[in-house]
Amino acid sequence: MVEPANTVGIPLNHTALLKDELDIVIPTIRNLDFLEMWRPFLQPYHLIIVQDGDPSKTINVPEGFDYELYNRNDINRILGPKASCISFKDSACRCFGYMVSKKKYIFTIDDDCFVAKDPSGKAVNALEQHIKNLLCPSSPLFFNTLYDPYREGADFVRGYPFSLREGVSTAVSHGLWLNIPDYDAPTQLVKPKERNTRYVDAVMTIPKGTLFPMCGMNLAFDRDLIGPAMYFGLMGDGQPIGRYDDMWAGWCVKVICDHLGLGVKTGLPYIYHSKASNPFVNLKKEYKGIFWQEDIIPFFQSAKLSKEAVTVQQCYIELSKMVKEKLSAIDPYFDKLADAMVTWIEAWDELNPATKA
Amino acid sequence: MVEPANTVGIPLNHTALLKDELDIVIPTIRNLDFLEMWRPFLQPYHLIIVQDGDPSKTINVPEGFDYELYNRNDINRILGPKASCISFKDSACRCFGYMVSKKKYIFTIDDDCFVAKDPSGKAVNALEQHIKNLLCPSSPLFFNTLYDPYREGADFVRGYPFSLREGVSTAVSHGLWLNIPDYDAPTQLVKPKERNTRYVDAVMTIPKGTLFPMCGMNLAFDRDLIGPAMYFGLMGDGQPIGRYDDMWAGWCVKVICDHLGLGVKTGLPYIYHSKASNPFVNLKKEYKGIFWQEDIIPFFQSAKLSKEAVTVQQCYIELSKMVKEKLSAIDPYFDKLADAMVTWIEAWDELNPATKA
Repeated sequence: MVEPANTVGIPLNHTALLKDELDIVIPTIRNLDFLEMWRPFLQPYHLIIVQDGDPSKTINVPEGFDYELYNRNDINRILGPKASCISFKDSACRCFGYMVSKKKYIFTIDDDCFVAKDPSGKAVNALEQHIKNLLCPSSPLFFNTLYDPYREGADFVRGYPFSLREGVSTAVSHGLWLNIPDYDAPTQLVKPKERNTRYVDAVMTIPKGTLFPMCGMNLAFDRDLIGPAMYFGLMGDGQPIGRYDDMWAGWCVKVICDHLGLGVKTGLPYIYHSKASNPFVNLKKEYKGIFWQEDIIPFFQSAKLSKEAVTVQQCYIELSKMVKEKLSAIDPYFDKLADAMVTWIEAWDELNPATKA
Repeated sequence: MVEPANTVGIPLNHTALLKDELDIVIPTIRNLDFLEMWRPFLQPYHLIIVQDGDPSKTINVPEGFDYELYNRNDINRILGPKASCISFKDSACRCFGYMVSKKKYIFTIDDDCFVAKDPSGKAVNALEQHIKNLLCPSSPLFFNTLYDPYREGADFVRGYPFSLREGVSTAVSHGLWLNIPDYDAPTQLVKPKERNTRYVDAVMTIPKGTLFPMCGMNLAFDRDLIGPAMYFGLMGDGQPIGRYDDMWAGWCVKVICDHLGLGVKTGLPYIYHSKASNPFVNLKKEYKGIFWQEDIIPFFQSAKLSKEAVTVQQCYIELSKMVKEKLSAIDPYFDKLADAMVTWIEAWDELNPATKA
């Protein structure tokens, strides 16, 4: 059986990596008691909490954590009419936190994610592993059978071209989940008791040209490299779809990373996902997505960005035009989404005026 | 420290899967004492031993194994002038065994590969895992973050298109190695003490459009689906290159699998690789390949087969023409290799006249 780790007695990590260059973004509707368990690893970092739902509610944050908190009123005040691009009553609102951060790196985690144990029983410092993933290169152009060649004890195998061994910069680190796997509603309904107990000790680069289902539960990225593409779309209140926020972001991000020569890693670290969401509620949110993804994925698989698109913003605006042109036929929702993608970039640029060299 | 498993006392596997549909191909220059350790798992199967080097030498096979053995004289006798396509003094000669087999599946293993232990200390039945890999589908068209979705305890994650969940037939199962990793000579020279001790409990599909370095040490495949593409090229005696036999086969195989809609899996099972080959000798064999692969890989990455190529043979003949046209400029060797690819297909069809439906 797989259980979360006990972190009581683990000393606070005083030599926290990238302490001043990373923000932790947490979308929530409740008190953040789950942070108690993360204290040894996360307390040194700054938190950006995006409060979803009723802004009059008070969210308690355990003592000792350094944080800023934004509720819906704050989002409306800061973005004005552009606040329309930020979802309400859906964890997609987390992307507002990416926008207001001023740091180079983001780690985002859900409030039902606890500290996992590795097979030796040791508590997994998820953030530390994400940082390792982001700080070493990716190898998207050729597959390495011994997984991440940059990891200690590993390397490129025989037959791997030497010219490709420098790799490319890593933009995204996608972590996994023990216990409750990230299944869709139909799979949850069919396999209500399935738990993920397999700890796969690997990190790997997702090859260029291959799309993947990016889950926002346990995710880190380089904001400077890919931030403006990390838009979680229009979900939840007033929208015909939910639970596709991170998927949408992942498809856009992967197409843009492939175009700009950036890497996406998946695998370690694991978190312990405690609570299965209600499959009936999920089905209601998801069912349009289950149809739509059959068209959306071929769309992204064939999406080609122009040579003129050299910044993430330019790529994203090009993508928004393609969405409007090619996906609006599926449902008027995509027309609205394409407009929101543009609004998101405008809002991003307004809050992040000085583009770094 | 990682050590091979002790298989003494493990009972013979009397319910061996696919016993009558699988041949084990072993290229060798010495007595096959290594089979003692494999007895519990491999004795029920038929072996095809391809004796390399001096045909007057006697190869001892441990008692109780059912085998046929071919030396160079046998190869010359059976293939006549077409024997020129089979390498001499190089383990590339193993592909002769693929050709004379009449079974649907092949497992090929090197004679310095022992039984590995999984993290619980249990001896790994490599062949059983290969068969599992080959008998369940592959998912090359979209990445599944929880690895092989067909494995027990796993499934497709949220966001994986339902239309792709049936998968495609698996043609190749590529296994890995504990202890001595499959490094090239330069990496061996730089890291003489590196050992692979990381047991990664995963099987995964290599995505469509992505090439990989296929190692022939611990490999299984469906001969009906991909056999004619498993040509290990011209290596060793009289050739300017060695140690690229399996790589060459892997590049051809992957391009053809992608074209025909077949899957390639990598990961489990592990074998325990006991003996590092001499890096100085390896460097001499490899060094041209180290240059050439810089051109060969872009060649294979951009190789497009025509719609008319619907059998493996047709695909392979098309590839041979492209090799002649595009790689001969690198070295006259590729002209010779392209001709040998055609000879190989002719010999294959001669020995395997009745194409199965």
